[in-house]
Amino acid sequence: MTGWNSERLARAAITAACDPAAPDLVDLVEQQGAEPVWRALRAGGPASAWSRRAAALDVEAMAAEARRWDIRFIIPEDDEWPGGLADLSPARVNGFGGPPVGLWIRGGGHAGTALAGSVALVGARASTAYGDDVATGLAFDLGRAGRPVVSGGAYGIDAHAHRGALAAQRPTVAVLACGLDRPYPAGNRSLFTQILDEGCLVSEFPPGRTPTKRAFLARNRLIAAVSAATVIVEGAARSGARNTIAWAHACGRPALAVPGPVGSAMSVTPHRLIRDGEATLVADADDVLAIVEPLSAAPELPTGGNTRLLDSVPARLMTVREVLPGRGSASVAKIATASGEPVPHCLAALAELEDLGLVAMLADGSWAVVRPGAVRSQGSP
Amino acid sequence: MTGWNSERLARAAITAACDPAAPDLVDLVEQQGAEPVWRALRAGGPASAWSRRAAALDVEAMAAEARRWDIRFIIPEDDEWPGGLADLSPARVNGFGGPPVGLWIRGGGHAGTALAGSVALVGARASTAYGDDVATGLAFDLGRAGRPVVSGGAYGIDAHAHRGALAAQRPTVAVLACGLDRPYPAGNRSLFTQILDEGCLVSEFPPGRTPTKRAFLARNRLIAAVSAATVIVEGAARSGARNTIAWAHACGRPALAVPGPVGSAMSVTPHRLIRDGEATLVADADDVLAIVEPLSAAPELPTGGNTRLLDSVPARLMTVREVLPGRGSASVAKIATASGEPVPHCLAALAELEDLGLVAMLADGSWAVVRPGAVRSQGSP
Repeated sequence: MTGWNSERLARAAITAACDPAAPDLVDLVEQQGAEPVWRALRAGGPASAWSRRAAALDVEAMAAEARRWDIRFIIPEDDEWPGGLADLSPARVNGFGGPPVGLWIRGGGHAGTALAGSVALVGARASTAYGDDVATGLAFDLGRAGRPVVSGGAYGIDAHAHRGALAAQRPTVAVLACGLDRPYPAGNRSLFTQILDEGCLVSEFPPGRTPTKRAFLARNRLIAAVSAATVIVEGAARSGARNTIAWAHACGRPALAVPGPVGSAMSVTPHRLIRDGEATLVADADDVLAIVEPLSAAPELPTGGNTRLLDSVPARLMTVREVLPGRGSASVAKIATASGEPVPHCLAALAELEDLGLVAMLADGSWAVVRPGAVRSQGSP
Repeated sequence: MTGWNSERLARAAITAACDPAAPDLVDLVEQQGAEPVWRALRAGGPASAWSRRAAALDVEAMAAEARRWDIRFIIPEDDEWPGGLADLSPARVNGFGGPPVGLWIRGGGHAGTALAGSVALVGARASTAYGDDVATGLAFDLGRAGRPVVSGGAYGIDAHAHRGALAAQRPTVAVLACGLDRPYPAGNRSLFTQILDEGCLVSEFPPGRTPTKRAFLARNRLIAAVSAATVIVEGAARSGARNTIAWAHACGRPALAVPGPVGSAMSVTPHRLIRDGEATLVADADDVLAIVEPLSAAPELPTGGNTRLLDSVPARLMTVREVLPGRGSASVAKIATASGEPVPHCLAALAELEDLGLVAMLADGSWAVVRPGAVRSQGSP
């Protein structure tokens, strides 16, 4: 593949021939370099499944397919390599573990930057309306607070987390368990298209690969490792999100969980994790930020004139504006409760009020009234 | 008052003349007996508010009023005296503390029996439909599991807790902050009538007394002390139920909290308590029961030598046994972390080790190594 040296080519080939999250393989590649390992695999004959796959692999065809989809392949020495993956070296869950040999990336965002200081939001595919609202609001608030959101691109909580981040006009990253030419699930196609714009899709798997159960389990470790903390929003009793939480523990990252109504089957796993001390309860973005610590200095306050603006504000916006506290700030969740408006409505109204220079989002993601004469501050990291 | 000896009469008079939860007064009564204390108060003249009230008190009229309402007065030597109150001797919250000098009781139930092994359910007066449902269901399930429910007779969570217990056809106890001739709030009159049938109303205050803020705070300590654990179902940011939780801590009782939707203002206090490690999350009656321990007699441990037992313990159990601290106890979460075993495996192993007489669960739900020859103590309130 043009511009790829043999080390990069060998690592790419290994992601195609070998199973992911095989710690011994990663150790071998680190010790010997990928080329000798790849040559040995090619020469291994039919002794192992990996050798058989290595012998059958058409590396050039794989590289051509990647080019066709604008998929790049990065390795640990690259500037774009996400932080945190090295913590997977000693981490094991059910025998899986180790950092990836390389990562396939697709999208306009720089994976390393887009994942720096990120928070992982994970949870049920069969989420409830409550969980969807919480995931959207949490991702929005985290995004505005300068925290990128990473998730798995699945239906339910994952998709709402990505959408909340996009609503906050922040790049978001979906770590997938399949080839990036065919992001799974296909039903989230338009979401993936939006993510590709300024964020990116990340995978251990080469183009053409369809997801397997093992691939999902291996993928979960990447989500936990590239983020500063993992939050589970909803999960039924046997939720796969438990696996991501286990990886967060294995990587030494905070495991967080959002509670819900005790009668909800989708809150069973968050509640059990909190009850058993395996996750810390978080009720809003402020709680998450208090644990992962703010990335940035507080936004600067306003300096221009807009005193008459309040008179011309539409009533639908005033409902939200009026519940903002006179002093201090309020989270979107609190604003939604106080105004009686659903979280998405509040988010939309706050964005409009912000454009009008009437409110501002603070560094912690909460919202405050801006004094007349204020200029909107960007709550950027 | 007919049948009352002078000690009882003096204690009753003290409850009328003096403020509740005054630790020094209780100490004095315990050391000197109530009669000399009462005589000293009577002779104290106008020097103190208590003395003035003591001088003005018509003890006979108070006794007659109690008779008229079928209100009895019990003291620590009585069979009906609830267990657990002695734990208030050292307990202090904001300077309040100490066991009551005596208790006024009204109702067909035996207070000591009706409170044995009870669980306190407390929470917001301005509860939500969700909280009401949870309180009712929890009280019903606890009642059916043989756990009496105690609460404060207020609107909202309290009332629904009492109703849930009554629906389970179990006596329930309301601990009030006023005279039992006028149970407060009057709007719960029909509920109080149902409680009186087989349960009882309990108060530190003599007939005629209307509730004060101080009385509510003093009352909260009784609720925490007479129960095996306190559960907060809902509470806004500045919930009074936090005070009952503080008393549970002061008495060494488990403090438990039910989560709810994160947007609900009424779940703010439970979520904060759980988040900050001040209360354990409980999602249902099973979670509560797992913490307060089964009521059923625990199997007695071998009183003879069982020193050889360790030799025959399977390796899978020893992994858990070995991480238990030599002194003190450890929570299941800590045991899981230390052993590297998932929580359910730890629980199963602990149960087996308990059956073998090698470990025991303490009253607070934590686990400790039992010395060979030890008999497990009942962690009773």
